[in-house]
Amino acid sequence: MLVLPRPYLLFVGDTTEPGFAKTALGLRDWAGECCVGELAIIPEAVATGLPRLTVPEAVANGARSLIIGVANRGGMIAPEWVSTLVDALEHGLDLVSGLHKKLSDIPELVEAADRCGRHLIDIRTPPPSIPVGTGRKRAGKRLLTVGTDCALGKKYTALALTQQFTARGIAADFRATGQTGIMIAGSGIAIDATICDFTAGAAEMLSPDAAPDHWDVIEGQGSLFHPSYAGVSLALLHGSQPDCFVVCHQPGREWMLGSTGFTVPDVADVMSLTIALGRRTNPAIRCAGVSFNTAHLSDAEAEELMASEDRRLAVPIADPIRGGPRLDRLVESCLTMEYAA
Amino acid sequence: MLVLPRPYLLFVGDTTEPGFAKTALGLRDWAGECCVGELAIIPEAVATGLPRLTVPEAVANGARSLIIGVANRGGMIAPEWVSTLVDALEHGLDLVSGLHKKLSDIPELVEAADRCGRHLIDIRTPPPSIPVGTGRKRAGKRLLTVGTDCALGKKYTALALTQQFTARGIAADFRATGQTGIMIAGSGIAIDATICDFTAGAAEMLSPDAAPDHWDVIEGQGSLFHPSYAGVSLALLHGSQPDCFVVCHQPGREWMLGSTGFTVPDVADVMSLTIALGRRTNPAIRCAGVSFNTAHLSDAEAEELMASEDRRLAVPIADPIRGGPRLDRLVESCLTMEYAA
Repeated sequence: MLVLPRPYLLFVGDTTEPGFAKTALGLRDWAGECCVGELAIIPEAVATGLPRLTVPEAVANGARSLIIGVANRGGMIAPEWVSTLVDALEHGLDLVSGLHKKLSDIPELVEAADRCGRHLIDIRTPPPSIPVGTGRKRAGKRLLTVGTDCALGKKYTALALTQQFTARGIAADFRATGQTGIMIAGSGIAIDATICDFTAGAAEMLSPDAAPDHWDVIEGQGSLFHPSYAGVSLALLHGSQPDCFVVCHQPGREWMLGSTGFTVPDVADVMSLTIALGRRTNPAIRCAGVSFNTAHLSDAEAEELMASEDRRLAVPIADPIRGGPRLDRLVESCLTMEYAA
Repeated sequence: MLVLPRPYLLFVGDTTEPGFAKTALGLRDWAGECCVGELAIIPEAVATGLPRLTVPEAVANGARSLIIGVANRGGMIAPEWVSTLVDALEHGLDLVSGLHKKLSDIPELVEAADRCGRHLIDIRTPPPSIPVGTGRKRAGKRLLTVGTDCALGKKYTALALTQQFTARGIAADFRATGQTGIMIAGSGIAIDATICDFTAGAAEMLSPDAAPDHWDVIEGQGSLFHPSYAGVSLALLHGSQPDCFVVCHQPGREWMLGSTGFTVPDVADVMSLTIALGRRTNPAIRCAGVSFNTAHLSDAEAEELMASEDRRLAVPIADPIRGGPRLDRLVESCLTMEYAA
C-alpha cells in the first residue's frame, strides 16, 4: 500500500479558482495538522488559510513532501510549475501528485529526483504485485460507504464517521480509495486505477486482518448502478466484505454523473442491491443508514426531507455536515450489530 | 482494438504436455484455416496435427506472425525459446504472445524487432486510450455468454453459437475478450487486463454500432458470483448491453475456481442476477438458454440431466460439443426475440 511522507507542503501554484483547489482545501479541512503551509507561485493564487511559505521555510518547518493540491483542465502538470517543483526536490522534498498526467512523465522532474535522491509519487499508480482476491473472511469490523452516484459525499461520510467513532473511543481507521482520500489518510490504494482482475484483491489488501473490535471505515467509489463504474463498485464491495454500509445520496440529483439518460436510483434500491451482492463475501452485511448531502437545502427543508425519508426507509438518516442527534443515531446504528428501526 | 497479422505459425516449442499447449490446440480447432503450421524446437514436442515447418518454410507458405501457442509454469518465455524467436523476427514474422511475461520485457527480442522492423504483440497489453463507458445504446444485436464460474466453456459456447448463426446465414462476429479468443478471432481486447475505471468502456469499444440485424457474440469472463472477478463480469455485462445471454455451467462442479469455501451458484440464480443487473444498460435483456459442459458424462447421463434441467429452468439447454436438436433449439431461442419455453 502507498504511504506518503508527512507533513506536507500544499502546492496551490497559479490557481485562482477555488474549484480547482479542491484537493488543497480538502487537505486543510481533514489533515490540517499534517500540513505545514501552502506554496503559491503568484500572489493571487487561492489561499487555503494555512501559512504561505517559501520552500526553504517549509523545509525548516519539517515538511517532507510537496503535494500538488490543484488541478487544471485536463489534469496536466503546467509547464509554469516545473521550476518550482524542481526547487522543492533540490531542497529535499518528495513530490506527490494525484493528477492523470504522471510526475514521472516529466523529464525535468525525473532528472532532478534522480540527482537529489528524492521520490516522485504518483498516487494514481497502483502498487505493484496486488494479489487476486480470495474472498477469505478477515478479522475486524468493516464499514463501506456506497453511493447512488459518483461525487456526492462517500469520502466525506467515511471521514466523518471515522472521526465520530474515534471520538467515542472506538479504534477506527479511514481507508482511502481515491486520490484526495489517500492524501488525507497518508496511505491507501487508488482503486479505480487498478487492473480489473486485481481490483477485489486490492480492496482486500486495503483493510487487512485487524483486532476483532477495530473498525475499518472504507471510502466507497462509484455506484452499483453507474453504467461506467459499477464493476469498480462491485469489486470494492466484494473485497471490503463490509459488516455494514451507509448509502450516500444527494437529494434532488436526477441524472447519473456523466451518463446521459441514466436516472439516479432510489436509495431503497441501492440498499437492497448492496445487500444482495455484498452477501457473497459477508453473509451478515446490513445497511446501517443513509447519508444525505443537503448543502443546497435550508435547515428546515433538510430536516423535513430526512424525517420523511427515514420513515420510508426505516434506517437512520443524517447529513454529516449538519451533525446533531441525527448523526449520533447514524453512528449508533453503525456500531450496533443489531439495529431495529 | 488489437488486430493480429495472419496467417499464423504456431510455436509449440519444447512442450511435451498437451495441457500446456491449450492455446495451440484451440487455434487448430477454431482457426485452423489461419494457421500454416507448427514450429517445434525438440522433436518430441506436442503435435497439433498441422504441418511441422521450419521458419523459412512457414514464411514461404505465407505466415505473417508467430504465435506462442504454449505456456510453461509461471507464464514465462523460456530462455531456450529466445534464439528461435529472434530467428522468426529476422525472417520477417511478428511475434504474438498472451503470456503474463511480456515479449517486450526480453531485451534480445526488443533489439531484434527494432533491427528488423517487426512487432512484438503482447495480447494482455490493452490498447491505449480506452474511453470511459457511456452506457449509450448501440445499434445491432448482442449476445453475451456468462458463467456460474470461470473456465467452464464461455469462449467455446460463444464460438459454437457464432458458427451456428453463420451457418444459418445470419451476419455474426465472435468478439474475443481473452487471450486465446483474441488469437482465434484475430482481434479483440483482453478485458481482464484493462484498468477497472475503463473496463465497461473497453466492452463498449469491442462491439461497436453495427447493422440492425448483425449479431456480436461476446465471450464472457468470470462470474457475477466469483469473489475475485465479479467486478470484471459486471463491467463486461454493462458495456456489452446484451439483448440475450447464455449461462454456461459445468454440472457437478461444486466449488468456485481458486476460491476456497465459495460454492458454485445455481444456474437459476445466475439467470436472475444477470437480468437484474443487465437491465441497467439494456432493459430488454433476456436469458436465451443454458450451455452445459458435459464432457465428463455419458450420452445417456448428459441427456437425462439436460432434460430434467430444462424442465426446471424453462429455457433450452444444450452442450455445444454434443450438438444435435438441443443445440438447434438453443440457437433458435437466441435468434427469436420473443421466446416462450
